[in-house]
Amino acid sequence: MDIEASWVVGFVDGEGCFHVGIARHPGMTSGCQVLPEFTVVQHQKDVKVLHALKAYFGCGVVRRNHGDRMAYRVRGRDHLLERIIPFFMKHQLKTSKRQDFMKFRKVVLMMQRGEHLRDEGLARVKEISSQMNRSQPR
Amino acid sequence: MDIEASWVVGFVDGEGCFHVGIARHPGMTSGCQVLPEFTVVQHQKDVKVLHALKAYFGCGVVRRNHGDRMAYRVRGRDHLLERIIPFFMKHQLKTSKRQDFMKFRKVVLMMQRGEHLRDEGLARVKEISSQMNRSQPR
Repeated sequence: MDIEASWVVGFVDGEGCFHVGIARHPGMTSGCQVLPEFTVVQHQKDVKVLHALKAYFGCGVVRRNHGDRMAYRVRGRDHLLERIIPFFMKHQLKTSKRQDFMKFRKVVLMMQRGEHLRDEGLARVKEISSQMNRSQPR
Repeated sequence: MDIEASWVVGFVDGEGCFHVGIARHPGMTSGCQVLPEFTVVQHQKDVKVLHALKAYFGCGVVRRNHGDRMAYRVRGRDHLLERIIPFFMKHQLKTSKRQDFMKFRKVVLMMQRGEHLRDEGLARVKEISSQMNRSQPR
């Protein structure tokens, strides 16, 4: 399947999700693990579109989400920093999903600097992630 | 907001719906009214995207759908025939929504020829519309 940048932006404006998970992790100094991920979920009948996104970005995995839904997922920090974030900086999302993306980017850049490993930085990450993916305007 | 064809295709692949409603209508010879409509629904925080689609296609309306959701809707047959259908013939949808679009197009072309006003045509329209917007592969 042949896809191009603007189609990817439109599709992600509709179906994409930029999410920052925070998981308790007793083995880490901060006690928490920060898990940023970019996902696109589709019914399994459209799994070929997810594989096209994987090929387009050159990273991530396509896995079953739940039931009859499949997900394209990018979790690797280097892939987020080198592929996903530069793409959406160059090709701007047009919906309010852009605000989620900008918060997501902020968290990943903080992680690159190791700020999430210190209490103050982690508190900031938690605050930012709590403001993402809300249905109300920010 | 500046939008372009590929973004529109990607966004509609994600969020668009091609639907053919059949309503009982005792005043019509066939007893039924065939109501094709193209819609894109968004949370009200992204209503500006719906207005951008309306401006892009030069037809349709933006109205409240229900609750906090808004809809861009095109129902006029001439607008469907002259704007929406030619656009998606030129710029192909990449998900299985393309099959729904092709069925939708078939119905609108049948209506243009008045076939839905005769029993046989109406039965065919009902059959086609029953095969649209299914979550299972066709």
